[in-house]
Amino acid sequence: MEVSKVEIRFGCGRQAIRLLSSFMMDIRATLRARLDAAVGSAQVLTAPGDIAPYLTDWRGRFHGNAQAVVRPGTTHEVADVVRACADARVPIVAQGGNTGQCGGATPQPGSEAVVISLARMNRIRAVDAANATMTVEAGATLVAVQDAAAAAGLLFPLSLAAEGSCTIGGNLSTNAGGTGVLRFGNARELTLGIEVVLADGRVWDGLRGLRKDNTGYDLKQLFIGAEGTLGIVTAAVLKLFPAPVTRATAFAALADVPAAIDLLRAMKQALGDRLVGFELISGPSLALTRRQFPSLPDPLPGHPWYALVQADDSAANSPLAAALEQALAAALERGTVDDATVAQSGEQADSLWALRENIAEAQRLDGPNIKHDISLPVSAIPRFLDEAETALTVALPGLRFVTFGHLGDGNLHYNLAAPAGVAPETFLAHTPVANRIVHDLVAAHGGSISAEHGIGQQKKDELTRYKSAVELDLMRAIKAALDPAALLNPGKVL
Amino acid sequence: MEVSKVEIRFGCGRQAIRLLSSFMMDIRATLRARLDAAVGSAQVLTAPGDIAPYLTDWRGRFHGNAQAVVRPGTTHEVADVVRACADARVPIVAQGGNTGQCGGATPQPGSEAVVISLARMNRIRAVDAANATMTVEAGATLVAVQDAAAAAGLLFPLSLAAEGSCTIGGNLSTNAGGTGVLRFGNARELTLGIEVVLADGRVWDGLRGLRKDNTGYDLKQLFIGAEGTLGIVTAAVLKLFPAPVTRATAFAALADVPAAIDLLRAMKQALGDRLVGFELISGPSLALTRRQFPSLPDPLPGHPWYALVQADDSAANSPLAAALEQALAAALERGTVDDATVAQSGEQADSLWALRENIAEAQRLDGPNIKHDISLPVSAIPRFLDEAETALTVALPGLRFVTFGHLGDGNLHYNLAAPAGVAPETFLAHTPVANRIVHDLVAAHGGSISAEHGIGQQKKDELTRYKSAVELDLMRAIKAALDPAALLNPGKVL
Repeated sequence: MEVSKVEIRFGCGRQAIRLLSSFMMDIRATLRARLDAAVGSAQVLTAPGDIAPYLTDWRGRFHGNAQAVVRPGTTHEVADVVRACADARVPIVAQGGNTGQCGGATPQPGSEAVVISLARMNRIRAVDAANATMTVEAGATLVAVQDAAAAAGLLFPLSLAAEGSCTIGGNLSTNAGGTGVLRFGNARELTLGIEVVLADGRVWDGLRGLRKDNTGYDLKQLFIGAEGTLGIVTAAVLKLFPAPVTRATAFAALADVPAAIDLLRAMKQALGDRLVGFELISGPSLALTRRQFPSLPDPLPGHPWYALVQADDSAANSPLAAALEQALAAALERGTVDDATVAQSGEQADSLWALRENIAEAQRLDGPNIKHDISLPVSAIPRFLDEAETALTVALPGLRFVTFGHLGDGNLHYNLAAPAGVAPETFLAHTPVANRIVHDLVAAHGGSISAEHGIGQQKKDELTRYKSAVELDLMRAIKAALDPAALLNPGKVL
Repeated sequence: MEVSKVEIRFGCGRQAIRLLSSFMMDIRATLRARLDAAVGSAQVLTAPGDIAPYLTDWRGRFHGNAQAVVRPGTTHEVADVVRACADARVPIVAQGGNTGQCGGATPQPGSEAVVISLARMNRIRAVDAANATMTVEAGATLVAVQDAAAAAGLLFPLSLAAEGSCTIGGNLSTNAGGTGVLRFGNARELTLGIEVVLADGRVWDGLRGLRKDNTGYDLKQLFIGAEGTLGIVTAAVLKLFPAPVTRATAFAALADVPAAIDLLRAMKQALGDRLVGFELISGPSLALTRRQFPSLPDPLPGHPWYALVQADDSAANSPLAAALEQALAAALERGTVDDATVAQSGEQADSLWALRENIAEAQRLDGPNIKHDISLPVSAIPRFLDEAETALTVALPGLRFVTFGHLGDGNLHYNLAAPAGVAPETFLAHTPVANRIVHDLVAAHGGSISAEHGIGQQKKDELTRYKSAVELDLMRAIKAALDPAALLNPGKVL
């Protein structure tokens, strides 16, 4: 029974409103009873203090409301919860580790949604070493998945800063990237099968562990990266890889970004897929990091650009370091590289990586920032950087550029720091201007305004701005086909 | 204006039928005029002799009809043709090189379809070496794409028997597999962006060359592998890789399939992604091939199973052969491998590959076969083989098993040859019985009844039999959302 029908039957008087409101309370009571029946009342949270942590993202930038947070323990329970919500026409927001960057897991302000936390569904269902796969539930943390793979002598290569608390369901729903994309791809490429609770509460069991399967539409691709707007991922079959046992790390000084692109190509040629990391770092980014963290090394002082190169090999006794050194020597000889150093120990390698990993924290300590998670065709990056720097410097004189990122994936963290002496609020007021310049140029060069963080609430308007009408229509057609009542994570993505 | 409305207006008498038939002729005349206007009349074929090659698959197993074959030269022309067909409610069958295995590009018998041949859209639009991508039109042959990559010093790794005549549009639409899947994935994994003409004639330009892009639903995934039932792929951005310059090939004798799985794992560990081929060959398959091709070598006579192992490296002077030999020696010592040989020259490597590549032809010369293109979790293959052999031997005593395939992908060519002395027609009459036994066991072990060939017309009923109701519903919902009038390649896949 739909609310609108009741409204029509009782007309519009005060009596009708009273009846309607009591009817809504009935719906709520009925829904509550069904949620209790589905997961047990201990797993249905409604007290403001209990649900508060689920209503705000981890950085406190998005705040929403919900009538309840439900914590199912099985796929069957998720299905029951979704069916109950669907019958009551109540929106549903799926939430994993709540570590998203764009508010995709935070319900909307004023919402009557039910938040479904997948956190209790955290079992590793199976590890199949001979097939190099594992089957895990959506609420397993990324680190738990990595650990289970390692216990079987294998590698699950997805790795990102939030790995201790983010969950695999969230990783898949946002098609997470991270540091291993160059070699292993995004979460999408690491997934062979999924289990999904659909908008009407039916369960699609697509938990296949196959590397070749051409039987009809590849439906899993729709749900991966859909940020919970098309269905709720409850489990997945993931690919595993041989564990790396040999590692070599180098740091190279470069005159400009085209030289970095040349070096990337030479490293791919020399190392093949043993090249697992190729991070670009601008001189100013490095200087800023060393200013905030003076104990960090300064391996090759005074160059405009740097590349951090890492190679892994699963073979014991691999002559990997020799191959890396040889490729660097050739690059020095060609003039691609101005200077280079290869880490002589694990500690040295770690301290080189610390230069890269501490940039974000150094920026936080340094002052306010306007950040962009963008990607471009690698070949377009030099021109994009030139054009963006010119346009931004005109618009915001004195701006400092903190540019770094995963060059191998074309993914830049293109961050803008306030000119010296400018107050934070004054600077941050320029965010819309800066975003428009950066995103317009990204679009002009065939890039992406969200390389790895997704859309969520934060970039919904930007998505509408930059996607073609045809693409938006296609997305809406898919949404309408899979979630006709528009109950799954409303206000996100589309 | 819809035909059905006309029918209602004029009633059902003889006069009405005459009017309706003249109206249909008008539609046809109008459609013909629009097709001529779209592509030029020289590219609209209607004479039976001209269109015949497009109405039958290359093996002559599927035969259909069409009112015309249209050969557009640009995406814009494809769009005009689709719009004209959509307005006239005429079905559309896209066709590339017409090399499919399942009748997916052959129109249905009695059909009034328009076949759109993409053959003239064969340009390499761009090669971007720094981004390691190329943009190609759907009608480019696979070999032309490989050649264009090679000319830029790079590799496009998709490779399959029909590569001289199959087209990249067909490769994407069937998510082609081939010999490089272990290392490089299927056609899907090699595609970064596509351009598609939709069912209503609109063009979706998704030609992005990005390795990270999380801006909404990944729509390209829907069209890849959809066999032209959701849209017509007109162009694609493909990934390129460093070209291999070092190669090592080995042949190993094994006691059983579990030993082959152990060796696969050891080779992955030792060689990482330099392992590009791991082919399983049964002793009887090898014996059959050598009987038909006595000039081929017999490197390790008398073992029940063999593995053909190939490793490639893009680095010059790579100690690849040494790594392969070392891994084989360790496997011999562990008892995983009973005997092994490493090719000492390109000629030796070619002759080892000839043992594998000639199995299909040897089977053809030997007599009738019942073939299966299946995949399984690698770990399930030994049990599947035991159970299938037992069940099939009971059902069809004397059956000969010709088992080989891409073990690294879990993809078996599971072929059954007639017992000695059984007439071909008698044997082939057992095909339904054999298919049922094999496909039931594949399904029971979580496998796929079509690993790389797709569904087309041939396996439509099998798809319906083995997919869950939920999955079929999801596929139908997607189809209805993207092709509501069901004009794109009717009778295929779903």
